[in-house]
Amino acid sequence: MTVSEFLLGRLNELSVNHLFGIPGDYVLPFFDELIDKNTGVKHVNSRNELNATYSADGYSRLNGFGAAAVTFGVGSLSTVNAISGAYADNSPLVVICGAPTREASKTVGTRLYHHLLGQDFDTSMKVMENITIKTLRLSSLETAAAEIDDLLITSFIHKKPVYLEIPFDLQGAELDIYPTSPLDFKQTVTNQKKLTAAVDQILKLIDKADSISSLVGPLLQRNNMILTTDKVISHINACVGTVFTGKISHFEDHPNAVGFYQGKVSEDYTIKMIDGADLNITFGVQHTEFDTGVFTDGIGVNQDSIHILNDMVIINGEYYFDVYLKDILPILAEKVTSLSPKQLEIDKSAKKFSFERRDKFTPTDNALTIDRMYVQFANFMDSGDVLVGDTGGYINSSQTEFKKDIKIHGCGNWGSLGAGFGMSVGASFAHSEVTSDKGQVISITGDGAFLMSAQELSTVIEHELDMTLIILDNSGYGAERQIHPGKERSYNDFLPWKYEQLAETFGDIDGVTTSSYVAQTENDLDGIFTELRGKKGVNVVRVKLDPWDSASFNVKFSEALQH
Amino acid sequence: MTVSEFLLGRLNELSVNHLFGIPGDYVLPFFDELIDKNTGVKHVNSRNELNATYSADGYSRLNGFGAAAVTFGVGSLSTVNAISGAYADNSPLVVICGAPTREASKTVGTRLYHHLLGQDFDTSMKVMENITIKTLRLSSLETAAAEIDDLLITSFIHKKPVYLEIPFDLQGAELDIYPTSPLDFKQTVTNQKKLTAAVDQILKLIDKADSISSLVGPLLQRNNMILTTDKVISHINACVGTVFTGKISHFEDHPNAVGFYQGKVSEDYTIKMIDGADLNITFGVQHTEFDTGVFTDGIGVNQDSIHILNDMVIINGEYYFDVYLKDILPILAEKVTSLSPKQLEIDKSAKKFSFERRDKFTPTDNALTIDRMYVQFANFMDSGDVLVGDTGGYINSSQTEFKKDIKIHGCGNWGSLGAGFGMSVGASFAHSEVTSDKGQVISITGDGAFLMSAQELSTVIEHELDMTLIILDNSGYGAERQIHPGKERSYNDFLPWKYEQLAETFGDIDGVTTSSYVAQTENDLDGIFTELRGKKGVNVVRVKLDPWDSASFNVKFSEALQH
Repeated sequence: MTVSEFLLGRLNELSVNHLFGIPGDYVLPFFDELIDKNTGVKHVNSRNELNATYSADGYSRLNGFGAAAVTFGVGSLSTVNAISGAYADNSPLVVICGAPTREASKTVGTRLYHHLLGQDFDTSMKVMENITIKTLRLSSLETAAAEIDDLLITSFIHKKPVYLEIPFDLQGAELDIYPTSPLDFKQTVTNQKKLTAAVDQILKLIDKADSISSLVGPLLQRNNMILTTDKVISHINACVGTVFTGKISHFEDHPNAVGFYQGKVSEDYTIKMIDGADLNITFGVQHTEFDTGVFTDGIGVNQDSIHILNDMVIINGEYYFDVYLKDILPILAEKVTSLSPKQLEIDKSAKKFSFERRDKFTPTDNALTIDRMYVQFANFMDSGDVLVGDTGGYINSSQTEFKKDIKIHGCGNWGSLGAGFGMSVGASFAHSEVTSDKGQVISITGDGAFLMSAQELSTVIEHELDMTLIILDNSGYGAERQIHPGKERSYNDFLPWKYEQLAETFGDIDGVTTSSYVAQTENDLDGIFTELRGKKGVNVVRVKLDPWDSASFNVKFSEALQH
Repeated sequence: MTVSEFLLGRLNELSVNHLFGIPGDYVLPFFDELIDKNTGVKHVNSRNELNATYSADGYSRLNGFGAAAVTFGVGSLSTVNAISGAYADNSPLVVICGAPTREASKTVGTRLYHHLLGQDFDTSMKVMENITIKTLRLSSLETAAAEIDDLLITSFIHKKPVYLEIPFDLQGAELDIYPTSPLDFKQTVTNQKKLTAAVDQILKLIDKADSISSLVGPLLQRNNMILTTDKVISHINACVGTVFTGKISHFEDHPNAVGFYQGKVSEDYTIKMIDGADLNITFGVQHTEFDTGVFTDGIGVNQDSIHILNDMVIINGEYYFDVYLKDILPILAEKVTSLSPKQLEIDKSAKKFSFERRDKFTPTDNALTIDRMYVQFANFMDSGDVLVGDTGGYINSSQTEFKKDIKIHGCGNWGSLGAGFGMSVGASFAHSEVTSDKGQVISITGDGAFLMSAQELSTVIEHELDMTLIILDNSGYGAERQIHPGKERSYNDFLPWKYEQLAETFGDIDGVTTSSYVAQTENDLDGIFTELRGKKGVNVVRVKLDPWDSASFNVKFSEALQH
């Protein structure tokens, strides 16, 4: 059992079946192991290292863990922005980096090795310490297996990225010692005493309240705790709102749904229901700028407040550290059954989403507008689909009411242009592993974001996957035009590509169907959506929009975001 | 005078007329100043931040200084690999990053701002400390101007990148105090006593030697010291070799040229002449892996040795710190005139380059091979041209004998795939500023490298610049196939794009001519080169090569590189 073989086996236990990576001379023995050994992990040859790590992040959001592999320096230092996004938005993954041999790293003198800054072999390690929860450089065949296990478990439990350097001479070397039992990555790390105290206090507050509101967020997706949370919310009969960094369609279709919450940017009815209850419980929601409408939320202001986070619970400002979401939620789901449900009336006529699926929509020959287009989009998306949005595409999607059981992921609080499209590539690999009846992967992105990682479309084509890519073409950075309005600013503009030619230019091989479309009017898009339902292969839709068009809600959001 | 206006004015004094950047909400006031104020610096809207910084690097290599501007976190952390390359290869530039307001940065509590990892406002600063020579976050209107001057001078003198964060509220604010005299960036920082001692010692060694060899490298390009060095070399009558990280065509056409030096990878004649002299002087050459043929060089082994580096001189192992190349070379050029030139015989029949321009070449209808193609390429390139090569394209170019006065830049010792193409974009902006009679910008790249930053081609088209892009299509990472040979490794392969469709897909606007070509045979390429001579606009040439074809010399180089 070699170091790389062991590592790949562990990744496979963590549901990693695809690893995204770019070979380079310092990491070639690892890649040899990757393609030669039967570990269940396949190599995806991404187009660059940043995109590879975005893909690993997107893969992690669906499968629970992600992995990328790169070479030293030129590779590792290209992944920094993507690792940072995974950190900010709680996505567990490992970036594996091949490093110079242990012998070379001891070099003193004047030698300047390639892929190094001067003579510092530790640059990447020092950089990564700032953006991961743990870094590790392997140094011996006795300790490697135990150190790898510790690293991966740390990432999985904390939902944060980690960084692993493997010296060239260790990548294909046989381990001296390694465990033969599976990785215990679901081990309990919760402080039981604090857990009991927190549960008691939560039950008391629930019992006391006449009305309860709740918010559900991304840490439920990361911990696979959506259905368990539904049990709690449904039994106590809390109303429920979704949030930007982790929009969960399951709860938007819930009978108790009151819409999308984003502080004062929300619809009035949503604010009234969420802020107005006696008690609010947030399930897996952090105190982010985007989830609170730039900190304009009313959570806990005139109400009791419970926050259930990944590794702690906060009850009316009192912290219960080391109480993990994955451990407390199943207990709550059981315990609340002894309490009586609250009274709750949902006003079905009240507007709850900027773009509502139930809106009647009759397409016209008018030019597309964001306000009407997203209603079409809401009706197009179907249960079983996976939706990944890049910044501009996701900001509007977040305000859209979707059907139940659509997996939705977006740009999060990190909000990096280009990350969402890269993530959608990773998501398409994860979704390709689903063998049961399944929907489609839809990637929706603004044009400015798409340009940043555009080459990754060719990876989807090369691997003969299925994806529908919707590019919102407004010839520039539309979101920025709203955040910083006034006269036209040339820095927000760029020359649009002929996006409808990209799929064909990037590769047109046997076994792959690529189709491209251009929509200018509502009727165009209606016809395209009809054709796309159930369609396989790679489909690219260029949606032409007026550069100054913006959704009504977005004007409010952009005002809040002004510094 | 606002902070940004002052900064841009200083950049303009450093010959920066184009700044590469991506707007984002934290940096918008800087961009407003950039487009509104008449500082002589124009904005280039690059396609992503990594590419923007590659472009700034390429711009710096021609104009002496470069600048990029990005937003906080998602922008700054995308530039890390490009800044690292500028550090490794001594390219002075500044990355300007817009940061949250000074007030926001004082936030304590639970608020998670967007574009941040948790609540750490210092992540980018801490990362940048590892990869720049200096970082600076502005904090007051009293000190800003002086701090900016110090930062830019530090970068310029040390030929290393620097990082500058400007809080949102300071970007458009009026300076309290600022100097009105021009930036004294040519100030002398040399220790005069050590300079005198070094000069005396160098003259003694020159006087003593019967034969002298020399190597010329990248720090001559950075310090604009090629002609001054020529005076020294020509007067003492040293033979001269060029090196990988800074190939200077001026010296390849020199009567004393003995070829391209790379330790044991060099041609036999070159090794004999360089290693066999009584004294070797390296002018602006560092002790890099790529310049020494993986440390197989014979410099100083059986000969006296003088190294003239950017900020020090090393004479037979004795260090003279704080003696700057830009200060010592003009003195040497004057002083050596009092010495008698050495005897030197150059064997005109000896092979000095793997690909020699003077080789007679009659194209055939045979498929292209690297060994013959680069002779065609050597004959195509003309004086006045600018050649920027990405890794695969550059490794072969480095072994090619070019005409005099071609500016050549490549992947350096950092060797990051994709960087060379990004740099060529920056170089095309710098070259567009040349008003006298000038040649063309030729970008030559392997396909694997090109994919990594491919979107940047659209920036060249949008800005209506001239560039000829040669893509060597061997459907994978050709250099790696040689470094790590054996059976075919799938990780080195990818699906080629239809590169001949890219220019048209990326934009086809009035005023811009894009032309695309595919070459499979020598006659194809011959016809294309004839057509391209003097041609304006954007020209893309797809050169189809056998995946397993490799230059003869490269087999030797790849063997040396194996770990």
